[in-house]
Amino acid sequence: MEKTAVTSRDFILKGDICYSKTKDALDCREKGVLVCTAGKSAGVFSEIPAQYKHLPVADFTGKLILPGLADLHIHAPQFALRSLGMDLELLDWLATFVFPEEAKYHDLDYSSQAYTALIEDLKKGPNTRSCLFATVHTPATLKLMDLLEASGLVCMVGKVNMDRHCPDSIREKDAETSAAATQEWLEQCGSYKNIKPILTPRFIPSCTDDLMRRLSALQKRYHLPLQSHLSENQREIAWVQELCPKSACYGDAYSQFDLFGGEIPTIMAHCVWSEDKEIALLAKQKVYVAHCPQSNSNLSSGAAPVRRFLEAGVPVGLGSDVAGGAHTSIFRAMTDAVQVSKLRRRLIGQNDAPLSLEEVFYLGTLGGGSFFGPVGSFEAGYEFDALVLEDAGFAPPFKLSLRDRLERAVYLSDNSHIKAKYVRGIAIL
Amino acid sequence: MEKTAVTSRDFILKGDICYSKTKDALDCREKGVLVCTAGKSAGVFSEIPAQYKHLPVADFTGKLILPGLADLHIHAPQFALRSLGMDLELLDWLATFVFPEEAKYHDLDYSSQAYTALIEDLKKGPNTRSCLFATVHTPATLKLMDLLEASGLVCMVGKVNMDRHCPDSIREKDAETSAAATQEWLEQCGSYKNIKPILTPRFIPSCTDDLMRRLSALQKRYHLPLQSHLSENQREIAWVQELCPKSACYGDAYSQFDLFGGEIPTIMAHCVWSEDKEIALLAKQKVYVAHCPQSNSNLSSGAAPVRRFLEAGVPVGLGSDVAGGAHTSIFRAMTDAVQVSKLRRRLIGQNDAPLSLEEVFYLGTLGGGSFFGPVGSFEAGYEFDALVLEDAGFAPPFKLSLRDRLERAVYLSDNSHIKAKYVRGIAIL
Repeated sequence: MEKTAVTSRDFILKGDICYSKTKDALDCREKGVLVCTAGKSAGVFSEIPAQYKHLPVADFTGKLILPGLADLHIHAPQFALRSLGMDLELLDWLATFVFPEEAKYHDLDYSSQAYTALIEDLKKGPNTRSCLFATVHTPATLKLMDLLEASGLVCMVGKVNMDRHCPDSIREKDAETSAAATQEWLEQCGSYKNIKPILTPRFIPSCTDDLMRRLSALQKRYHLPLQSHLSENQREIAWVQELCPKSACYGDAYSQFDLFGGEIPTIMAHCVWSEDKEIALLAKQKVYVAHCPQSNSNLSSGAAPVRRFLEAGVPVGLGSDVAGGAHTSIFRAMTDAVQVSKLRRRLIGQNDAPLSLEEVFYLGTLGGGSFFGPVGSFEAGYEFDALVLEDAGFAPPFKLSLRDRLERAVYLSDNSHIKAKYVRGIAIL
Repeated sequence: MEKTAVTSRDFILKGDICYSKTKDALDCREKGVLVCTAGKSAGVFSEIPAQYKHLPVADFTGKLILPGLADLHIHAPQFALRSLGMDLELLDWLATFVFPEEAKYHDLDYSSQAYTALIEDLKKGPNTRSCLFATVHTPATLKLMDLLEASGLVCMVGKVNMDRHCPDSIREKDAETSAAATQEWLEQCGSYKNIKPILTPRFIPSCTDDLMRRLSALQKRYHLPLQSHLSENQREIAWVQELCPKSACYGDAYSQFDLFGGEIPTIMAHCVWSEDKEIALLAKQKVYVAHCPQSNSNLSSGAAPVRRFLEAGVPVGLGSDVAGGAHTSIFRAMTDAVQVSKLRRRLIGQNDAPLSLEEVFYLGTLGGGSFFGPVGSFEAGYEFDALVLEDAGFAPPFKLSLRDRLERAVYLSDNSHIKAKYVRGIAIL
């Protein structure tokens, strides 16, 4: 094989490597070699293959090397609200805490200050990919995208659309205004390397039919992925049924505007109360569920039927849902997902088996990562997002298997244990 | 008032002070003054009272000052097992992970190494009081007590009793041997200042009737408090019913040996499945429930009816239940308790209101602290256990009330935010 010039995105990591092969199986390689060429994985090996012997080696012997984590659902302007108002449920919490806070993002200085704090947190944490809701404000949304681009993280960001059922301070005047602002925003975000726009109607109650039709047209024109909310809270679901009396289920209310997956990559956050018909629609349309267990507990929403999504073939990833969730780390979302699945089974007597460590690790890496393309694995050809974790500080006084070290790191690590972090082959820590 | 000589346990802290007045009400004092005299609180003031003007002041202006936290249930030898085996339920997890690990504690070197790691963690964390299970081994239990005494933490420690239904490696030969070993242990732990023994029959399945009778006699003779487990898991409860066919409920199986509260301070961990009769017995006998929400999720045990305990007048505190729980911090137990109470209500349609921030903060301070005497409050006369937290690192870009800063610290703080920690008026950090 011909040698090419070595760039900063060509190197080798040595250490104890774990990643998901499938949702049920880990590949765990002690004293492994992980090769990055041109920002992509060239695979995991036991020894450095001959054709890569010329690459520089970062020796992390004894440390864990894992794929970067993917957060499929986070509200950037709610970072400042973490853990506040946790006695309320969704609709009251939106009205009391979220909408007044989001209204502040017409102020670019405030936005810049608040978004900088979020991004500092994200850089130090284990996530390398995020799908973020911004607010309705174009300048603040572009500011968020600028700051994220500078961070090295790879993200999708959505200017939010809302033209009804919210305070005047954040309601766009009408469907036409909202769609025009969206188009104006889209035309300003073509030059980012790592940040892509994603269409973001907040949820059915916030968007008139007219707006949904216009967004559907924009989506086709710009080939935009989409993120929104689905079946999070029982009062919300009843409200959607009132607003869209012809829809067969909440998901169908998006479908009627051709805004529910299919050809277009789509994320629906929560899906706590999705029943058979909606689960079948999610599966058929290959809509990603962003499972946000901590938020669903904090806002008393419930516990999503993740086992059923997996059995039905619905693609699933994890979401922090800051600030319904208080923690940005997708490691925390993994353990929350396990715990909630156990309580769900015990309390409502379902036959749905709890989620395993293997499953939640998959959901937080390859499961959600795949929304971004070949991301979340170390198989050859995947984009090179990696974390190096020092787990010696919480090692027990006996030898653990690599799989058990992973379980322990998922439960017990914090940002202080992250010793290196790579996104698309570039070190950002 | 006559001035006395100033000792290291006489001083003043200045800062933003929060503590529980009752389970529903916080006392929050910005720019407050907290006076410690002879290791006890002399109260919270707005200005330094004249009689204390001569005391040295530690100025923590802008930082939070909170009571130390109380962990009513932790298994010291399971610290090494945190987060391992989380796919199992209680009885299988005990057999597969816990009993083999506890058997290692016949080795004093191993015990010393493992207990040192636990205590390093506890010193850095927010808890100032703990009730710990050790193992059946007297030398290792005394080693744990020695190490805890040196740490400055105030704890109760129990040598565990088990004479049936466990592997030979940790089963005491018979009731007589177990009781004799307990007496021998008790006679060696009279000289600790901060560490007290607590009688610790593991749970009904581990102890023959003969052993329970002997422990009851020892309890009377030595005036010992008691800790054990109650109604954690449905298979366990069915087993207890088989073992004690005459008992009206699991709690009654302890009652029949006069080992269920009343005059004697008693903690029962979990009580996940306690029904009306058992709740009434807990209330009548003033038995403390150690509510361990994370463990109850991790081991798929369920969600305890804490609201009912509170309404029935049962004393309640929080427990980490390491290693059913993976985290020693009682801040984490507070948020877990809120989240689990919300899921419990949503999933099983109960009318039990979720726990509030005020309630869980009370449970983790005064609620559990009161098991140790006047502990967990800053009212005058309480033992001076205090934490100083730097919350500026997670402050939002707007001013929060002190109550909201507390909520945020409960959800978001970690050990790195603890800037000082006092136990009985002595700084241990």
